[in-house]
Amino acid sequence: MDAGQLQAYLVKEFPQAFGPGRAHEVVRVDAGGIGLKLEAGDEHLRPGATVSGPAMMGLADIAAYAAILAAIGPVPLAVTTNFSINFLRKPEPGAIIADASLLKLGQRLAVCEVGLRAPATGADPYAQAGEEALYAHAVTTYSIPPRAI
Amino acid sequence: MDAGQLQAYLVKEFPQAFGPGRAHEVVRVDAGGIGLKLEAGDEHLRPGATVSGPAMMGLADIAAYAAILAAIGPVPLAVTTNFSINFLRKPEPGAIIADASLLKLGQRLAVCEVGLRAPATGADPYAQAGEEALYAHAVTTYSIPPRAI
Amino acid sequence: MDAGQLQAYLVKEFPQAFGPGRAHEVVRVDAGGIGLKLEAGDEHLRPGATVSGPAMMGLADIAAYAAILAAIGPVPLAVTTNFSINFLRKPEPGAIIADASLLKLGQRLAVCEVGLRAPATGADPYAQAGEEALYAHAVTTYSIPPRAI
Amino acid sequence: MDAGQLQAYLVKEFPQAFGPGRAHEVVRVDAGGIGLKLEAGDEHLRPGATVSGPAMMGLADIAAYAAILAAIGPVPLAVTTNFSINFLRKPEPGAIIADASLLKLGQRLAVCEVGLRAPATGADPYAQAGEEALYAHAVTTYSIPPRAI
Repeated sequence: MDAGQLQAYLVKEFPQAFGPGRAHEVVRVDAGGIGLKLEAGDEHLRPGATVSGPAMMGLADIAAYAAILAAIGPVPLAVTTNFSINFLRKPEPGAIIADASLLKLGQRLAVCEVGLRAPATGADPYAQAGEEALYAHAVTTYSIPPRAI
Repeated sequence: MDAGQLQAYLVKEFPQAFGPGRAHEVVRVDAGGIGLKLEAGDEHLRPGATVSGPAMMGLADIAAYAAILAAIGPVPLAVTTNFSINFLRKPEPGAIIADASLLKLGQRLAVCEVGLRAPATGADPYAQAGEEALYAHAVTTYSIPPRAI
Repeated sequence: MDAGQLQAYLVKEFPQAFGPGRAHEVVRVDAGGIGLKLEAGDEHLRPGATVSGPAMMGLADIAAYAAILAAIGPVPLAVTTNFSINFLRKPEPGAIIADASLLKLGQRLAVCEVGLRAPATGADPYAQAGEEALYAHAVTTYSIPPRAI
Repeated sequence: MDAGQLQAYLVKEFPQAFGPGRAHEVVRVDAGGIGLKLEAGDEHLRPGATVSGPAMMGLADIAAYAAILAAIGPVPLAVTTNFSINFLRKPEPGAIIADASLLKLGQRLAVCEVGLRAPATGADPYAQAGEEALYAHAVTTYSIPPRAI
């Protein structure tokens, strides 16, 4: 799926998170994986106007799912089996980008790495970035239904 | 802190989650740890009316924090550094109980184990239960500020 | 498998770890799971004569595998897919007990919890113990081949 | 520390693992982190002559420690607090390279990412490689003693 197809699919499947007026948006799909942006609203913030831990966990989880969708197309029955996250730095106020890439795409399990960071200030704020200043780093395993490859 | 003190503190610190009309509630504090109940609302559900993964992650994270509060009193600067969860079974519709107990309470780090399950059907639905049918199992590490012991 | 069968199977499959003169031994199999003992030798120690982190990781990994064997019989193709451990306290010199119990035994994945501790000083040093003074706590996921249930 | 200093320090601290005739060796230190090579011997293999899970866990753990040493110099009191690994592919027979890079180097905690892979076949078999075909991927947290920065 390309970025437009992925966004359209997520709007349909997660209307509370994606779509007009919603906080989440697909900002990148390429060979290296996908990027999601969270434009945090009040429900994602904690005192100090930084994004809460659970909001970052939710963003990382859905970014991993989006990376699987981008790679193999719609698999509505994929479920998270393991999710592990390290919180590295307190996020700055403002949007958060999640860069997700697949470490493994097997017959039954997909393992995905996700880095959370601020948008870059350069020409393409959503281009995949390095790990210099990650807010958080997650690794997640999805169980995926059998499929033809 | 006992259950009443813990609930009052959480209502003040997390008014969006605890308090009249809110989804989360302290249901147990004893020597073994604490119990929280999540009475899931629409924002915690996914299609099929079961509780979403991110809602379970948020519940487990706050249950771990509550277990630390119960053990050492208010430590507003405690922050999650690592969070790892295994999703074991699709939850039944209805409330979810989180049982949290401390594996370690050190000078700088606290490690907490959390089991998520349905309320029991017996005399005390919130008594700490075994691990027969956990929906999910999480282990979380909090960094805690230096303190007198 | 009972304790004798499990020990015999592990001696055959892991002769370098189990059997006469070897460091690992099955000490308990019951409804709650299994117990392994590691009688650490020089190769498991680090300066100070306490058991090294990698030796504890190896012990926890094989204890989880033994718990699966005890529950469903020999499954030589089971492989660890995810292993997560928190080191909680520096171990005392001497033997280490690993208590392993299954959190989930599904068609494709088994999730196991393992606590590492000193042998108890009471009547049965290998009875399953609580979590008062764990050296380390691990959660591990095994991928298991399809089977008849 | 550069590669020579790091190797010399590890030979002294872990003589059973590093040094003449030993299985582990520092093969890279640069701005991106460090690389270790494990030339597996019988004690690291399981049937089929592939490297065992515990041997890979030990390699990843020590690679993370080496990355911290390279960044801040000798800190003998650093201890692993959390270690999480996903096993992605069965390793090929032969040497394994561990590429370790720091995600965070804080006052009290260091978080390190480690990828395990085969040596590359190109000009520099030990240059840091991508994530195309990792055998395993680990994230580890070390508690480090206070220090001047």
